[in-house]
Amino acid sequence: MHIDTLLHWLDLLGTVVFAVTGLLAASRKQLDLFGAIVIAMVTAIGGGTLRDLILDVPVFWLHAPVYVYLVVIAAVLMFIYVRFFTAPVRLLLVLDALGLAAFTVIGVQKTYALGYDDAIVIMTGIMTGVVGGMIRDILVGEVPLILRREIYATASFAGASVWLLMRPLFEDATLATLLAMATVLLLRLGGIYGN
Amino acid sequence: MHIDTLLHWLDLLGTVVFAVTGLLAASRKQLDLFGAIVIAMVTAIGGGTLRDLILDVPVFWLHAPVYVYLVVIAAVLMFIYVRFFTAPVRLLLVLDALGLAAFTVIGVQKTYALGYDDAIVIMTGIMTGVVGGMIRDILVGEVPLILRREIYATASFAGASVWLLMRPLFEDATLATLLAMATVLLLRLGGIYGN
Amino acid sequence: MHIDTLLHWLDLLGTVVFAVTGLLAASRKQLDLFGAIVIAMVTAIGGGTLRDLILDVPVFWLHAPVYVYLVVIAAVLMFIYVRFFTAPVRLLLVLDALGLAAFTVIGVQKTYALGYDDAIVIMTGIMTGVVGGMIRDILVGEVPLILRREIYATASFAGASVWLLMRPLFEDATLATLLAMATVLLLRLGGIYGN
Repeated sequence: MHIDTLLHWLDLLGTVVFAVTGLLAASRKQLDLFGAIVIAMVTAIGGGTLRDLILDVPVFWLHAPVYVYLVVIAAVLMFIYVRFFTAPVRLLLVLDALGLAAFTVIGVQKTYALGYDDAIVIMTGIMTGVVGGMIRDILVGEVPLILRREIYATASFAGASVWLLMRPLFEDATLATLLAMATVLLLRLGGIYGN
Repeated sequence: MHIDTLLHWLDLLGTVVFAVTGLLAASRKQLDLFGAIVIAMVTAIGGGTLRDLILDVPVFWLHAPVYVYLVVIAAVLMFIYVRFFTAPVRLLLVLDALGLAAFTVIGVQKTYALGYDDAIVIMTGIMTGVVGGMIRDILVGEVPLILRREIYATASFAGASVWLLMRPLFEDATLATLLAMATVLLLRLGGIYGN
Repeated sequence: MHIDTLLHWLDLLGTVVFAVTGLLAASRKQLDLFGAIVIAMVTAIGGGTLRDLILDVPVFWLHAPVYVYLVVIAAVLMFIYVRFFTAPVRLLLVLDALGLAAFTVIGVQKTYALGYDDAIVIMTGIMTGVVGGMIRDILVGEVPLILRREIYATASFAGASVWLLMRPLFEDATLATLLAMATVLLLRLGGIYGN
């Protein structure tokens, strides 16, 4: 698969899984549908929005309403689902880990392509990965995942670093992308299940 | 009244009522005057500021300090008022509903005029309406209104949709504006008093 | 010392002390290193980032990664320190006061140089001074310093006003800068120790 296609799919994947985590967090508070959609939306697009504002590039969803529709559809389907079925307890954590992995790589790749310093690339990668979930947790009054003792920002940092180290070694970014995502997922899921 | 004049007054109205809700929320925490003004300011201009940052247009109050002065004056007057009189318990909720109605329409109208997709217009309308109050509630440590069970984001969504549906039907936006505001107010106040 | 040099050092000072306050707040929650660095980073660069986004100028750290490295180094050193030594109880408050003073003046000076109205200058000064600490306190689940009863926003407002009043009186901004900082520090520390 071409790397741009891969990144596009990862972006949509991260958007959907973060939207679902937002909906799951909101459903614990028994929000109505639109309140829950607001939480899902903030979770899914918060990190990327802040990143784009800081990089002074057009906010990614402004001219691509597909992100907005995707969040709404994912949120509505999940809203119906949790009415009838119980969501597995750790589902939110696992999906959040997947979103963290996808969005960290997306953020790193976007800032790297703009030619910024490594420190800035890593920072905006972590920012893209963690900010949406942070706002979600603050809004629903939970302790932010990043503040719990398990590995969280560390996983995002490690993934961003792996991407930056691997990227120059290959002509194509596919391997760096997959390895970076695997790094985030292994560290984060290891952190969750190791405790 | 010309629609631009109407929108301008609605904007000032929303600014004042949200400033007052910020001051009321702050007064429960017995903040000093300047702490209370900070909360009032964030509540009154938070939503529109985020909207303008995302739309990449100049932030509305940067070149119109009247908004800043208006918030300060409203906050100071209310600060004095609550020293001597008890604010009616539901005043914060009713003013918040009025601000939600005014700012939803302002946000919708501004993004629509820039030619964005309907989904983006509705999103930025809701954002303009709900973000200031969300930050206010998080700062003072209250459960955000949007997270309580009564209708909140739903009212903003409905108002934004009514505006978008009505707007093309008439040459002038006045009717769409008034109907959209009435929709938000009826749903929101119905949600409060129905519970 | 030339005023630009003074401001540059104040900026670095504010960055380091706010980073340390972020680390201290995070260490109470026993965060891992990278989680703690995220809190330190947000505290140190949050206010200036929001200011630059609103002023629509390049975000200060994007092309000056020294800020990022400085925060990381300060956070790592402090992370090690608190493992072995107990941080004095009031250290966070005193460093926060120093950061508030430095960043208020930096914010005021930057917006003033861009020719904005006095009300906007004061507002962005206060914003630069208080926003990083606000996000820190919300993230770690503490009551924001600005919401406690001691003088906080008032000190920042007074410092910003002193700067604006003194600035036109002298050719050089050094005196205005030092007097404004002293004002913030005296009021804030007086507020802390007076209670």
